[in-house]
Parts: sequence; C-alpha cells; structure tokens
Amino acid sequence: MREEFQADLDEISRLLVTMAEAARAAMRKATTALLTADRSAAEAVIERDAEVDAIYGQVEAKVADTIARQAPVAGDLRTVITALHISADLERMGDLAEHVAKTARRRHPSPAVPAELRPVFTGMAEVADRMAGEIATLLGKPDAEPAARLETADDEMDALERRLFQVLLDDDWPYGAETAIDGALLGRFYERYADHIVNVGEQLVYLITGEPATDRS
Amino acid sequence: MREEFQADLDEISRLLVTMAEAARAAMRKATTALLTADRSAAEAVIERDAEVDAIYGQVEAKVADTIARQAPVAGDLRTVITALHISADLERMGDLAEHVAKTARRRHPSPAVPAELRPVFTGMAEVADRMAGEIATLLGKPDAEPAARLETADDEMDALERRLFQVLLDDDWPYGAETAIDGALLGRFYERYADHIVNVGEQLVYLITGEPATDRS
Repeated sequence: MREEFQADLDEISRLLVTMAEAARAAMRKATTALLTADRSAAEAVIERDAEVDAIYGQVEAKVADTIARQAPVAGDLRTVITALHISADLERMGDLAEHVAKTARRRHPSPAVPAELRPVFTGMAEVADRMAGEIATLLGKPDAEPAARLETADDEMDALERRLFQVLLDDDWPYGAETAIDGALLGRFYERYADHIVNVGEQLVYLITGEPATDRS
Repeated sequence: MREEFQADLDEISRLLVTMAEAARAAMRKATTALLTADRSAAEAVIERDAEVDAIYGQVEAKVADTIARQAPVAGDLRTVITALHISADLERMGDLAEHVAKTARRRHPSPAVPAELRPVFTGMAEVADRMAGEIATLLGKPDAEPAARLETADDEMDALERRLFQVLLDDDWPYGAETAIDGALLGRFYERYADHIVNVGEQLVYLITGEPATDRS
C-alpha cells in the first residue's frame, strides 16, 4: 500500500513537472512572438494552451484516484491536495503566456512593444524563464531553500515592472494610450506569471516544512 | 456516517457562502472607494482581505478533515474537491476587490476614474455585484440553470470592457497615459472578478450534472 502510494505521488510529480515545462515553453514562445512580431509563434502558443489544460485534468483525475484508492490522511493527504493547488497555478501560468501571445497577434504585423520597452520586456522574460526553469526542477526534486529563493527573483520582476511604468508614464512617452495600455497589461502578465511561480514555491516549502505561507495574494 | 458526511458538506457550503458574501461586500466597498475617492473605504477593503483569506484556510482545513474522516469516493470525493476549487476562485475575487481599493488609495485624493469613465465603471460594478449575489445564493442552494445563466451576465461585463476601451483609445482622450493605464487595469479587475464567478458557476454545474466545463480560461 505504501509503495503504491509512493508510485502515485511519483506519477503526480511527473505530471506537474511536465506541466511546468509546458508553461515555461509557452511563455518563452510568447515572448518570441511579442518581441519579433511572429504571428505563427503567437498562434502556436494559443493553440497549445489546450495541452496545459489537458495535463491539469490529468492531475485532478490522478489526485482523485489516489485519494479514493489510498485514503491518505494527515501529511499524505496534505501532499495530494497541495498538488491540486500547484496544478491550478501552473494552469494559470499557461493562460498568462496565452494572453501575451494574443496581444502579439492582435497588434500583428506591428510590434506590440516599441523599441523603448524592449529592454524591460527582455528582462522580464528572462526572469520569468529562469524562475519557471527553477520551479520545474524543484517539482521533480523538492527542496525548501531554493524554493524560498524564488522570492528574490520575484523582487527582480517587481523592480522591472516599476521601471516599465517609469517609461510608460514619462512625460515624453510618444506612443499614445493604446501602446501604454498594452505595455501595462503585458507587464502585469509577466508579473502575475512570476507570482504564480512564487505560490508554487510556497506550496513546496509548506510540503517540506509544514509551515504555511503567510502571503496568499 | 452518511449523515455525518452530509453535515460536513453543509458546513463547507456555509463557509463558501460566507466567503462569497465577503468577496461581494469587498467589491461593493472597493467600488465606493473608487467612485467617491473614499480613502477610509479603500483602507477597510485592504485590511479585510485577510478575513476572506482566513475563510479560505477554514475551507481547506474542513475539506482535509472531511476526506480524512469520511474517505469519500466517486461523486462524494468530487464534491469536496470541487469545494477547494470554488474557494480558490472566491479568494481571488477578494484579491481583485483589494486591487481596485489599492488603485483608489494610490490616486487619493484625486479620483482614479475621470468623469467620462464613471458610467462604464458604474455598470461594471453593478454587473459584478449582481453576479456575486447570484453565486452566493447558488452556493447555498445549487441549481444548474441559473449557474449557466451567469455566462450571459459575463457577456454584459465583456461588452462594458469593450466600451471602456473605446473611450480609453479615443483620439480625443484627454487624460494621458497614467489614467488610461489605470482605467485598463481597473477594467481588467472587474472583468476577472466576473470570470471567477463564471468559473464557480461552472463548477456548480459540474457538481450537479457531472458534465465538465469546457473553457478553463
């Protein structure tokens, strides 16, 4: 029974890693679509979001199956329920990559991001990709310390978002309201993506240490 | 055992209703803060978000306790796991009300919403409040038909968001980029709030009919 349960957990963990990798690949491709006005990359991200959603369904089914067959209690039950929360965060990361891709597609063939904003979005995409890579690794091999360090990377993301707003709100901003709004929304998509990774990291810390995260927002 | 399980479900349902009512009250007060530049209303929403988060924690604890004690399977297990998803949507609705309140506070004593945008935000707040009231009722007494009708109200919300963008992107928009960005983000907060209500409605339909919702985004 115990071995079976461990096999169930391993399977759930593999699904979460696959989902994290899919959400990472999606944001990477969405960034390409955004920064190079590549319509086919944008379309690919939008079509493939269904794949992330499908893995989400598999996690839910596997968790329900595990609870029904193994009747886990206490820490074991906490572990499988936490997997549900994690998959919800990863699913939402896929959606946010899709939002970036849709913005790129809507403005195509114009670039959605003017030259002044390229450095900050390149930076945001780099931080997002690094964090997504770390969380995919951690989901395969949980470790409280690097999980807690994701907050530091998230601070970098927040600093980039503040820099973005400085550019958007500069008196000399030459591009008008539509490009400013797109810039602000895009910044929010990257920032939310990083927040969901921090949430996943907090869930992992909770699993390992038993200490709940204090900040849910 | 069966009676005990039903009592557990009733308790979970009561918690979800309380949470929905708290998320509704939060958005109502956040709208007041926004449209009347009322700083103390904004502060109250921001402080009280911890209450919604606390009920979220209670739902999680009650679900874990119910699974551990009752070892539900099949439809019963689906019901308690669905309660977790619903509470996550309601928690996020509280966060979105808090985002509206924070925008109002940041711009205080100036109003965050210029006169041209008041009608559209009044409309969005009205639709959000109506939907939140309906979902609170449905959580106490699930019914597939009105739950499915929430999509119609959500269409009204989407139409209001399109109208908002028409105003923001009009060539004669006189308020500059910052107010345009705030308007776009605020519109998104109301629109996401309504989306989460639609998600809750879909979860309820799934519970009643066994038919999964097709659209997760």
